[in-house]
Amino acid sequence: MNQVARQPRRVVADKITLAHGGGGKAMRDLIEDVFTSVFCPPGMEDQARLMDAAITVPGARLAFTTDSFVVSPMEFPGGDIGKIAVCGTVNDLAVGGAMPLWLSAAFIIEEGVDIATLRRIAASMQKAAKEAGVSIVTGDTKVVGKGSGDGVFITTSGVGVIAPDRNLLAQTVQPGDVAIVNGVLGDHGAAILAARGDMALDTEIPSDCQPLNQLMEAVLAAAPDTRVARDATRGGLASALNEIADAAGVGIEIGEELLPLRIEVKGVCEILGLDPLYLANEGTLVVFVPEDQANAALAAMQTCEAGRDAVIIGKATKQHPRTVVMKTVFGGLRIVDMLVGEQLPRIC
Amino acid sequence: MNQVARQPRRVVADKITLAHGGGGKAMRDLIEDVFTSVFCPPGMEDQARLMDAAITVPGARLAFTTDSFVVSPMEFPGGDIGKIAVCGTVNDLAVGGAMPLWLSAAFIIEEGVDIATLRRIAASMQKAAKEAGVSIVTGDTKVVGKGSGDGVFITTSGVGVIAPDRNLLAQTVQPGDVAIVNGVLGDHGAAILAARGDMALDTEIPSDCQPLNQLMEAVLAAAPDTRVARDATRGGLASALNEIADAAGVGIEIGEELLPLRIEVKGVCEILGLDPLYLANEGTLVVFVPEDQANAALAAMQTCEAGRDAVIIGKATKQHPRTVVMKTVFGGLRIVDMLVGEQLPRIC
Repeated sequence: MNQVARQPRRVVADKITLAHGGGGKAMRDLIEDVFTSVFCPPGMEDQARLMDAAITVPGARLAFTTDSFVVSPMEFPGGDIGKIAVCGTVNDLAVGGAMPLWLSAAFIIEEGVDIATLRRIAASMQKAAKEAGVSIVTGDTKVVGKGSGDGVFITTSGVGVIAPDRNLLAQTVQPGDVAIVNGVLGDHGAAILAARGDMALDTEIPSDCQPLNQLMEAVLAAAPDTRVARDATRGGLASALNEIADAAGVGIEIGEELLPLRIEVKGVCEILGLDPLYLANEGTLVVFVPEDQANAALAAMQTCEAGRDAVIIGKATKQHPRTVVMKTVFGGLRIVDMLVGEQLPRIC
Repeated sequence: MNQVARQPRRVVADKITLAHGGGGKAMRDLIEDVFTSVFCPPGMEDQARLMDAAITVPGARLAFTTDSFVVSPMEFPGGDIGKIAVCGTVNDLAVGGAMPLWLSAAFIIEEGVDIATLRRIAASMQKAAKEAGVSIVTGDTKVVGKGSGDGVFITTSGVGVIAPDRNLLAQTVQPGDVAIVNGVLGDHGAAILAARGDMALDTEIPSDCQPLNQLMEAVLAAAPDTRVARDATRGGLASALNEIADAAGVGIEIGEELLPLRIEVKGVCEILGLDPLYLANEGTLVVFVPEDQANAALAAMQTCEAGRDAVIIGKATKQHPRTVVMKTVFGGLRIVDMLVGEQLPRIC
């Protein structure tokens, strides 16, 4: 009901207590002070009420997605759980060809969390939302006792609109289609690993966490017959490629020497025996485009900040359907299977 | 991509492991076996793609809401965390006058949770969704290590559509407007309290957890000038009334002898010194309607299963603005303030 930012009011405590989740004054003050004063939602009813002209275009569809974020640690080089919660959901909308419009944000907070930490997270979310051009319009706060959670878990959901002519689907990928990634692989996974102190590194690896919707718009403008896009989050590029190969019934062939890898990430993987193809990304996508639009798509990506390091990494094939293979630097072929689990838990 | 229910596949483990959250085969199998085989979402892309004719009606607006659910225990008389997660979000849409259409469901699961428990929760969600006439169209699964969560946390978000002529707002409540609740108060809070074993009760109190969208439609058809509705969840009826009084700048007067209370809940409250006005409900709402539409609204409620016990509990007043008072059975007046916290943590 109040469209302008409120003056922050003083929350009495410095740390979250169970009372902050109880639905009373303490909760209302916390929400107003820490969240709505930053996000400035369009109302304070139990639900946001929204409309956008793009939705009413005949043939347009809504895109709706959700993700929970439990990344540990909550703050790391290049981002934090708030930035990742916004970018992750924006990107899930974007890879479907949707224009992201609105986000919800639900917080499950462990008793004892510093309110100053929540403020940093909220500020980071708002910054990422602004960068992506979306609004955080509704939310929720729950508190669990010490030891029943771990810091802050955030679930964001997103609503966007898909223009009438767009129908990106993994099933439409055909032999000959070209696979392009927008930048270096595995930075997010390596950043989290480093931030956990599991490695003693001289160089700080920042997460690649970033919104990809503007990049996707550029690709779709340049390559209107783009078949499909996937953000290569948990499970890394390998999982994204396997899902596409599986759905389309095609083979996929990538070249090891084509894969863009930061030298530090390569080093980390070699030392620890990790495979960068399976490392999580939070700002990296792979698109499949018809061969005759590949150069246009690549050039369009490279004009975007998020696609500066874009490269072609391989193509879909008629051979070995539903299987992803990599031509190694030694000239051999290696099957890139899906992992059963993940190399690292709580990566996002 | 597969519109029909899949044959359940065997998940190798009986309990959730960290691998089930890793983005690989284990996660995909879990999601297909436990969740999508039950929810049957309209696609398996990173986002659901949706449209409904009601959205394109000129003047219609989307309603968008989210809630996290952390109720403990996860299963209790009258419901479970899955049912509550569906009903809670459906009801947040309904009280805004929206027709609920689609839900998302994001699960944060603690390592070691029985997969059989997840199956029961998923079945319960689907049953509640069917009853409410909504579809669970997209979701997410994360796993946290033992001791970093507590069983299952579920975040549901919901999208619905508000017909053009509807604008329920707490600010529109005027002195003289009549307050009606649809049924007995405090059942959910008392049910959770009992399920925790904090009390030794002969009678089982079931939670009131239920979808309220059909009830809301009946009220709005009978009383088209309904001012506002609120579901009286965390913080109970007292918090809902205080929020309305605050937003509208009116006083609210309720009668203690008018409040519908189950005899068992009354007893529990008397023994434990709890106030049923602050006990959480999960299927109870309060509406404010103009005096001349009150009887119509009441009658409409009583024709619905969820409104069988509906009663008028009080009215908005010019006196004592922003304050809720209750006429006690002894003829006195008691201020019904907002609590700072909650009487019971993790109630929903």
